[in-house]
Amino acid sequence: MAKEVTKREDNYSLWYNNLVVKADLAENSAVRGCMVIKPYGYAIWEKMQAQLDKMFKETGHQNAYFPLFIPKSFLSKEAEHVEGFAKECAVVTHHRLMNDPNGSGVVVDPSAKLEEELIVRPTSETIIWNTYKNWINSYRDLPILCNQWANVVRWEMRTRLFLRTAEFLWQEGHTAHATKEEAIAETEKMVNVYAKFAREYMAVPVVVGYKSANERFAGALETMCIEAMMQDGKALQAGTSHFLGQNFAKAFDVKYATKEGGLEYVWATSWGVSTRLMGALIMAHSDDNGLVLPPKLAPIHVVMVPIFKTEEEHAAIIAKMEELKANLEKLGLTVKIDDRDNLRSGFKFAEWELKGVPVRVAMGPRDLANGTAEVARRDTLTKEFLPMDGLAEHINGLMDKIQENIYQKALDFRAAKTYKVDTWEEFKTKIEEGGFLLCHWDGTPETEEKIKEETKATIRCIPIDTNVCEEEGTCIYSGKPSSRRVIFARSY
Amino acid sequence: MAKEVTKREDNYSLWYNNLVVKADLAENSAVRGCMVIKPYGYAIWEKMQAQLDKMFKETGHQNAYFPLFIPKSFLSKEAEHVEGFAKECAVVTHHRLMNDPNGSGVVVDPSAKLEEELIVRPTSETIIWNTYKNWINSYRDLPILCNQWANVVRWEMRTRLFLRTAEFLWQEGHTAHATKEEAIAETEKMVNVYAKFAREYMAVPVVVGYKSANERFAGALETMCIEAMMQDGKALQAGTSHFLGQNFAKAFDVKYATKEGGLEYVWATSWGVSTRLMGALIMAHSDDNGLVLPPKLAPIHVVMVPIFKTEEEHAAIIAKMEELKANLEKLGLTVKIDDRDNLRSGFKFAEWELKGVPVRVAMGPRDLANGTAEVARRDTLTKEFLPMDGLAEHINGLMDKIQENIYQKALDFRAAKTYKVDTWEEFKTKIEEGGFLLCHWDGTPETEEKIKEETKATIRCIPIDTNVCEEEGTCIYSGKPSSRRVIFARSY
Repeated sequence: MAKEVTKREDNYSLWYNNLVVKADLAENSAVRGCMVIKPYGYAIWEKMQAQLDKMFKETGHQNAYFPLFIPKSFLSKEAEHVEGFAKECAVVTHHRLMNDPNGSGVVVDPSAKLEEELIVRPTSETIIWNTYKNWINSYRDLPILCNQWANVVRWEMRTRLFLRTAEFLWQEGHTAHATKEEAIAETEKMVNVYAKFAREYMAVPVVVGYKSANERFAGALETMCIEAMMQDGKALQAGTSHFLGQNFAKAFDVKYATKEGGLEYVWATSWGVSTRLMGALIMAHSDDNGLVLPPKLAPIHVVMVPIFKTEEEHAAIIAKMEELKANLEKLGLTVKIDDRDNLRSGFKFAEWELKGVPVRVAMGPRDLANGTAEVARRDTLTKEFLPMDGLAEHINGLMDKIQENIYQKALDFRAAKTYKVDTWEEFKTKIEEGGFLLCHWDGTPETEEKIKEETKATIRCIPIDTNVCEEEGTCIYSGKPSSRRVIFARSY
Repeated sequence: MAKEVTKREDNYSLWYNNLVVKADLAENSAVRGCMVIKPYGYAIWEKMQAQLDKMFKETGHQNAYFPLFIPKSFLSKEAEHVEGFAKECAVVTHHRLMNDPNGSGVVVDPSAKLEEELIVRPTSETIIWNTYKNWINSYRDLPILCNQWANVVRWEMRTRLFLRTAEFLWQEGHTAHATKEEAIAETEKMVNVYAKFAREYMAVPVVVGYKSANERFAGALETMCIEAMMQDGKALQAGTSHFLGQNFAKAFDVKYATKEGGLEYVWATSWGVSTRLMGALIMAHSDDNGLVLPPKLAPIHVVMVPIFKTEEEHAAIIAKMEELKANLEKLGLTVKIDDRDNLRSGFKFAEWELKGVPVRVAMGPRDLANGTAEVARRDTLTKEFLPMDGLAEHINGLMDKIQENIYQKALDFRAAKTYKVDTWEEFKTKIEEGGFLLCHWDGTPETEEKIKEETKATIRCIPIDTNVCEEEGTCIYSGKPSSRRVIFARSY
């Protein structure tokens, strides 16, 4: 097998990279840190986009589009924001090339220097709030509930396909509200939209919670997040929703006339998920044979592989497959018949396993005689021979079972790797094994920082689920009193 | 009326700009030449995208995503391409900002200069063919039929919302083929997809043809296009499809092993439409009252305005409207009830006319008593009182009528402004009036250039419809023999 992937236990990181490349999801490009998203990978992203976009619209949001470039001075207007985002970024300084006077090729035209440099957006709060200033006069103009699907650039030093790339695709919601309460409600609503999407579509269990001050978005008063556990026990932040208070309204002087005739600063939120979700999806479910895709996001639901010796057998099998395909498509499933004539069926089986197609149907001359087909599930790697009669409905039912099964599997895995830890010694041992450590913490950034220095673990979130976490105790590190547990983990 | 727009006959250019801004489609941003696409404008673009994407997929294409940045040296690899695209562009030279040592704010960190400058893509042939090199080994890897939805940047000096902006949104298809014939067939197929979309969805009649050498895409052997006529008689190029020959394959050394064991360069096409289509849509149909949107691309199909004095009347009318809305939604239409309590109905009528909503329904106490509603068509500005009974079906039928009517109107307009012109004197007179001039041309770039210098008119295309244009004659300018007429016009 040319396309074998490294085993997880041998090298988890290499396994992941192998999968992404060999399953044709993405690859590194000629531009440092930027990836090419290949058609199969992009088809999964499109399915994510379509569902998220639907959920955003159902919650009253509209799409819009704001400029790719941000004037350098805008970044400085919000004090914390500039610290977080104005450092590693792509800076446009010139607007023209010219023929190299000393030879072939082109060089930057020194006479075409921009008066003010432009930054390729790392996130769009500044340019958007500069725009909202002109859209908002009175309380009647509020709320503004906009989302944009866009590319953004953060000049990352160490990049990994989907997880951390210099350019990535995302959506960023930016909303403006008359009251603090409404903005907080929006922040919570959207983190819950993300949680629902992760659980029900990606089949990835997530914990919803608040970030500690150290991990907060630069410019936010509060950052909510969804955190998922990967198969190596590390946490992956899969989406964030920020309550920005009046910080950006103040930085860009955005006020509204209240119903009562006053003048107030506007309240803001922003929230986003990115192509990083692809990384979460891949790492949460896949195995040593390749991808395992949840049916709700799989570009191909069913692949069929004919097994034959003669032309007559081939024709008869393909005819049966076309019939089954038509029935499956009527049920809303996407089907591919792999009729390539230059590959053995074993190779095809392995390739579609690698690509994570939920169900494989194989049919040979004996099946044809018996009126059966071999149906294989990607998630369990189990196979059974089933009658053709009623097979489309059976396979359709399997989709729900597979979606549930992989969610349950991930949930069980997370439960098994989540520990209440109460001593520093145990913390240091457990953190090496990976997993979520539910610990008491004294609430100070200093303690979090020290724990990070000693163990590389950070607070992934302060869960909103108070049943699990709200109890009296003492900080795992400082011994000071604490009123709730938080989740510590190493993370991507 | 605060939102009145300039009349077309007073100032066509200002009329257009007024419409775009006052109908909330787009506005200029704080970044020179870059626009903000507002939710109402973006909703139209999304409808265009959805339909085009469907048509691309139906013709076998898949979406993918390639990097925003192109290494400077890539642009130089195809000789003509560099001339056309490496000039006015956004150049990234640094990857970091730092706190200004002399004061507040941030400055470019001189130590973070890139080894090789990156260009924000003006079009993606180079980065894509550099990628395809690794995807293509044998004839079995062909064809590759990829499309990407993306933003691109061309540093335009004079910009106009949607028509010519520094950053714009578009799709670019890039295909790779084993044979010349297949690539030419693809070029033709896609220009016809664009023509079908323009005619059937935008309700804009277009001429399909070939560009002359002067107007060809930089790097193409042949450029096909769709050309539309605006209401000022000027032409607007609405989409292009390029046969690139083996130019990019040779520049990036992309060869494939043939079935017969040989090694050949790959054949290429590329094709694109952009947010410029928004400009074409607006200018083709709108009038002095505002936008006129074809129902197939209208974000809102029906707007309803209640007219009432008392609370009781209001409640009864809204109840009737909700009923009608539900029936319309069942038929697949999007409906808005404008129940704002701070605006007079006359203001609302004008606003929805400005926004081009195809059908308006008004209902007052008398309608309530009579079981009727007033139904107004945006395209004809006609009104009639109709019974509520069966009204949803009637309105649904109106959508087809409106779609047809505005197409026919644009077609009639174009026919009335298309002239066969056979003398240079007549050419110079007619070109001032606007319109398409069908003229003989001697086929030389020099003649086209001279005609352009003297009249600002260019060859918009050499139509593929030979019935109209193929006849013997003599060049309008040089008097040399010509075997077919071409379309001359001034253009956007």
